[in-house]
Amino acid sequence: MQVYEAPIRDMRFVLEELHTDDGFGDLEGFEDFDEDMRSAILEEANKLCRDVLLPLNWPGDQQGCRIENGVVRTPDGFPEAYKAFCEAGWAGLVVDQKWGGQGAPHSLAKMVEEMSCSTNLSFGLYPGLTGGAMVALEAYGSNDLKNLYLPKMANGEWSGTMCLTESHCGTDLGMLRTKAVPQDDGSYLVTGNKIFISAGDHDLADNIVHLVLARLPDAPAGVKGISLFLVPKYLPKDDGTLGDRNGAGPTAIEHKMGLKASATCQMSFENSKGWLVGEPNRGLEAMFAMMNTERVAVGIQGLGVGEIAYQSAVYYAKDRLQGRSLSGVKNPSGPADPIIVHPDVRRMLMTMRAYNEGCRALSAWVSRALDAEHAAKEPEARARAKDFVALMTPVVKALFTDLGHESAHLAVQVYGGHGYIQESGVEQFARDARIAMIYEGTNGIQALDLVGRKLPDRMGRNLRSFFHPVSQFIEDNGADANIGKMVGALQQSFGALQLATGHIAQKGMKDPEEAAAAATDYLRLLGFVAMGYCFAKAAKVAHAKLAEGTGEADFYKAKLVTAQFFFDRLLPPATAQFMAIRSGKASMMDMPAEAF
Amino acid sequence: MQVYEAPIRDMRFVLEELHTDDGFGDLEGFEDFDEDMRSAILEEANKLCRDVLLPLNWPGDQQGCRIENGVVRTPDGFPEAYKAFCEAGWAGLVVDQKWGGQGAPHSLAKMVEEMSCSTNLSFGLYPGLTGGAMVALEAYGSNDLKNLYLPKMANGEWSGTMCLTESHCGTDLGMLRTKAVPQDDGSYLVTGNKIFISAGDHDLADNIVHLVLARLPDAPAGVKGISLFLVPKYLPKDDGTLGDRNGAGPTAIEHKMGLKASATCQMSFENSKGWLVGEPNRGLEAMFAMMNTERVAVGIQGLGVGEIAYQSAVYYAKDRLQGRSLSGVKNPSGPADPIIVHPDVRRMLMTMRAYNEGCRALSAWVSRALDAEHAAKEPEARARAKDFVALMTPVVKALFTDLGHESAHLAVQVYGGHGYIQESGVEQFARDARIAMIYEGTNGIQALDLVGRKLPDRMGRNLRSFFHPVSQFIEDNGADANIGKMVGALQQSFGALQLATGHIAQKGMKDPEEAAAAATDYLRLLGFVAMGYCFAKAAKVAHAKLAEGTGEADFYKAKLVTAQFFFDRLLPPATAQFMAIRSGKASMMDMPAEAF
Repeated sequence: MQVYEAPIRDMRFVLEELHTDDGFGDLEGFEDFDEDMRSAILEEANKLCRDVLLPLNWPGDQQGCRIENGVVRTPDGFPEAYKAFCEAGWAGLVVDQKWGGQGAPHSLAKMVEEMSCSTNLSFGLYPGLTGGAMVALEAYGSNDLKNLYLPKMANGEWSGTMCLTESHCGTDLGMLRTKAVPQDDGSYLVTGNKIFISAGDHDLADNIVHLVLARLPDAPAGVKGISLFLVPKYLPKDDGTLGDRNGAGPTAIEHKMGLKASATCQMSFENSKGWLVGEPNRGLEAMFAMMNTERVAVGIQGLGVGEIAYQSAVYYAKDRLQGRSLSGVKNPSGPADPIIVHPDVRRMLMTMRAYNEGCRALSAWVSRALDAEHAAKEPEARARAKDFVALMTPVVKALFTDLGHESAHLAVQVYGGHGYIQESGVEQFARDARIAMIYEGTNGIQALDLVGRKLPDRMGRNLRSFFHPVSQFIEDNGADANIGKMVGALQQSFGALQLATGHIAQKGMKDPEEAAAAATDYLRLLGFVAMGYCFAKAAKVAHAKLAEGTGEADFYKAKLVTAQFFFDRLLPPATAQFMAIRSGKASMMDMPAEAF
Repeated sequence: MQVYEAPIRDMRFVLEELHTDDGFGDLEGFEDFDEDMRSAILEEANKLCRDVLLPLNWPGDQQGCRIENGVVRTPDGFPEAYKAFCEAGWAGLVVDQKWGGQGAPHSLAKMVEEMSCSTNLSFGLYPGLTGGAMVALEAYGSNDLKNLYLPKMANGEWSGTMCLTESHCGTDLGMLRTKAVPQDDGSYLVTGNKIFISAGDHDLADNIVHLVLARLPDAPAGVKGISLFLVPKYLPKDDGTLGDRNGAGPTAIEHKMGLKASATCQMSFENSKGWLVGEPNRGLEAMFAMMNTERVAVGIQGLGVGEIAYQSAVYYAKDRLQGRSLSGVKNPSGPADPIIVHPDVRRMLMTMRAYNEGCRALSAWVSRALDAEHAAKEPEARARAKDFVALMTPVVKALFTDLGHESAHLAVQVYGGHGYIQESGVEQFARDARIAMIYEGTNGIQALDLVGRKLPDRMGRNLRSFFHPVSQFIEDNGADANIGKMVGALQQSFGALQLATGHIAQKGMKDPEEAAAAATDYLRLLGFVAMGYCFAKAAKVAHAKLAEGTGEADFYKAKLVTAQFFFDRLLPPATAQFMAIRSGKASMMDMPAEAF
C-alpha cells in the first residue's frame, strides 16, 4: 500500500517555529506569502499530490514509458495530471513574477517539492528539470532568450532538460565530444549524442527546451572548452508559437531499475539549431548554477521517498496482525497483535521517522538560506546565507538520498515477504529512490565537493556559517534542565566533527588523497551533527510549547520522543565514523590495483 | 557486466589454513575428501557456475518465469542447466552416500553453494530447496518415505519445497489454516492455500515433493497444533515411477522485485494426498530442522551476491576512465585514469572485499562446526560444535544478507548512472539480494532468535562456544609484534560485546522488550566481533606465511591490507552500536501507536 498524507504539521513546525533565530532576519519580497497563505498552499499541494499524483505512481511504474516512432509516451494519466499541475500554477511556484511565476520562497516550495517527490517521484522530475533549466537561463541567458522562453516554461507549457552526460563521460565532463558550430545568424548547429537525459522527450509539454553542453570548434581541451547551448525541440517563432521541428530527439529510452515513469532518454543532436547561453567556454559555470539548485532538489527527493515509505510502513504495521506483544496482549479480540507492538518493528519505524524529521528540519534551514542569499535585508546575512548554502548543498544531496534509500528498504523490511512483491507498492520506493544517490553527481562526488571545495574555500568561511550557530547553541543550552543531556551528546559529536575537520585540513593540505579518503565518512558525520543540532533545537521548542500549554501537546511530545531516539540510536554510530576518518588513507589505498 | 571467477584461493585459505586450531579436531567420514579432492571439486564447481549458470543469470532476470495453463515455465536454458547440474552430481553433494549422495562435508559444500549463489541465485534456489527438504525428511520421515523419496531427490530427478506461509501468516505460523484429514490407508488429504512458495512449480524436475505445514482435525490451536506432511506433485508408485497427478499445484506466480527466474508460487492444495512426516502436532520441530540448514544457506546467498558484486565492480573500476588520480596521472596514454585510482571508489571496493572475506572466513568456521556436530571424534567437540552452530545460525543468516545487499548497492554506486541501467547487470544483484534479508525468517526475527533463545539457552552455553576462543586468542596474541594492535582493537570491541551481553541478560530478564529492543544492534555487534576475530587470525596466519617465505606473498599481503581496512573503517561504527543497545527500549517504545 502506498499511503500518503502530507506531514503539514511538521512542515509548519520547521517553517514557522524551529528556525526563528537563524539570524537571516526578515526576508524581503515574500510579503504575499504570510502564514495563512503558506498554510493554504501546503493544503492545496497536499490535495493535488495525494489525489492526483499518488494514484498514478504505482501504475506508472508498472506501465513505464515507451518510445513509438521516435516519440516518447508517458504512462496513462500523466498528460492529464501534468495539465492539472500547470493550470494550478505549480510549475512556476518559485519563478519570478515578472516571468509569470508565483515568486514563492524556496523554504515553502521545498515542502511542496517534498510532497510531489513522495507521491510520484517520476512525475516530479518533469517540472523539476524545467525549474533547473529556468535557473540557468535566468542567470545566464540573453534578454531575447529569456523573454521568449521563460514565460512558457514558468507556466509549464514548455519543459526543460539538462543534457550533460555522454556514454564515455559523466563525472568527467572534460571528455565530452558534442560539437557546436557557429552560424552567420548568431545561432549554432549542435551535433552529438547524449545519454541518461531525464525528461529528454515526452508528451506532457508542447515544446522541450534542452540545455546542452557542447564544444565550440576552437575550444580548448578539457572542462575549460565547454559551452552551454539552448536547443529547443521545436524552433519557436518570435511570437512564441511553434515552428519547425529541430533536429534533436530521443533515439531510445533507458531501461532502468526504477523511476520507470520518468522518460530517461538517449538523445541525438544532428545539426540542431541552438543558441549560446552565457559566455563561450564557460558553460560549466552556467550549468553549475542550475546543478546546485538541482542538488538540493535531489536531496528533497530522498526525503520525499523516505516520508511515504514511513507512512506506508506505519499503515502496514498497524494493520498486519502477527504475534503477540512481549508486554502482554494488546489486541485481545483479534487472532494476533498488530506488528507495531514489536520493538524491532518500532526500531525500523522510529529510524525512518527520525531520518525524515531530521532531514526536513535541516532542509528548512537550508532553504531559508536559499531565500536569504537574495532576500535578506542585511548584506552580512546574505553573505552568510550564501556560505551556508554552499556548504550544505552536497550534504543535503548525499545525506538525504542515502537516508531516503535506507528508509525505503526499512519499509520493505516492515512489510516482510509482502514487501518484496510488486503489488505492495513499497519495493517501488526502494527502486525509485536508488537513482537519487547517483544522479546530479554521485554521493561520492558530493563528499569530494564538500571536503575538496567547500571546506577550504576562503579559509573555511563556509564552515563557520554552520559551526558558529552550533557552538553558540551548545554554549547557551548545555546546562538546560530539559535538553542539557541531549546538548551534551551533541557536543561530543560536534567535538568529533571538529577533530575530523582539523584532520582533513592538516593531512589534506599535504596529500589530497587523505582528504578524499575521509570524504564520505566526513559528510555523514557532518550531516548527523547538523540533524542533531536541529533535533536539540526542536526539543527546546517542544519543551517551551509544552510548558506554555499552547495545546497540540501530542505533537510536541512525539517530537521529544523522536529527538531522543535520534540521540540514543542514530547519532552514536555516525559519530564513530570519526575513527574511520582518523585512520587515514593507508588501508584504503595500499592494495595494488592488480591485487583486486 | 556480471563478472565471475570463483575466489578459490581465498576459499582454500579459510578451509585449509585459517581454522586449523578450532578445536573440533579431525572429522570422521570425510576421508574421501582430501585436499586434492577438495581442490578438484572447487575447480569443477567454478567451471559449471562460471560457464553454465552465469550466462543464464541476466537473461533469466529479464525473461522471468511464466505460468501457462497451470504449468510453470522457467527461463530459457534453465532446464538444460539443471540437467547438467544434476548429472554432474551436484544435487546430492552433502547427501549421505546411502541415498546416492556424495557425502561431502558442509565446509566444502558451502563454498560450492557460494559459487552458485554468486552466478545465479535464482537457479540455486531450486536444488537448495530440495536440499532443505531432504534434511527434514531424513531426520523425521518414516523409512518407507525415505526409501521412496530420498534417492530421487539426491540425484535431482525430483525436487523439494517448503510450504509454510499463508497470506495471513508468515512469522506467526500459529495462525495457519491449511487442514489435513486422515484417511483409512494411513495417508492424509491436505487442503489449503499457501503463498510465497519458492520452486513451488517448475519444469526442471520430474516430480516436486512439497513439505506442507497443516493442522489435523483435532489439533490444538496455535503452533502446538501444526503437523508436517509430504505432498508430492505426482503420486509415485512403489517402484518410484510416477503415477497420477496429485491435487497440488500453482495458481499464480508472484511478481517480485527480483529473483525473477525463481518461480515463487501461490499454491493450492485441494484434498491433495500426503503423508505425515514426524509426530502429529510436532511439525514445527521437523520444519525447524530444515529451517536451520536453510538459514545458513540463505546467509551464503548474501555472501555469494556480495562476491559477484565485488568482482563486477572491480572489473568496471579498472575499465572505466574518468578523472585523474589526485596523486598524479596513472594512465598517461589514455584520456583519463581508471576510476580505481580514486580513494572513494577504493573505499567502496575495499568495503565489499572486507565484507566478503570476513563472511567467508566466518562461514568456514560455522560450516566446520556443522560437520563437527556429527563427525567430530570427541563428544565434547560435537557438543561444542552444536552450541556454536546454534549461536551463529541467526548471525550468519542476518549479517551476511545485510552485508551482501549493501555490497550489491556499493557495486551499483561504483557503476554510477550505468549501474542504474538494467543492461549493466549490477542492479539485478541488488534486487536479487534483497529477498535474502526477508525469507526464512526476517533478519529482525533472526535477531530475536539470537537474544531470546540462543543467548539464554542453558545459561549462556552457546555463547561460551564463541566467547572462549575469542578471549583465549586475545590473551595469547595481545602482545604479538605483528598483530598486537589489531588484537587491541578486537579486545575493545569484544569488551563492548561483553557489556552488551550483560545489559541484555540483566534488563531482558526483567523485561523481555528490553532484550528485543537491543536485538538487531546486538546481532550486528556480535557478527562484527566474529569477523574481527577471523581477520585478526587471518593476519596472524598471513604474517607467519610471509615470514616462512612460502610463496604467494601477494595473496598474504592483500589479506593483511583487507584486515587492516576492516579494523580501520568497518569495526568502529559497528562497535558504537553498543551505545544504541545501552540506551534501552524507552525511546523506541515510548511513542503511542496512534502518534505514528
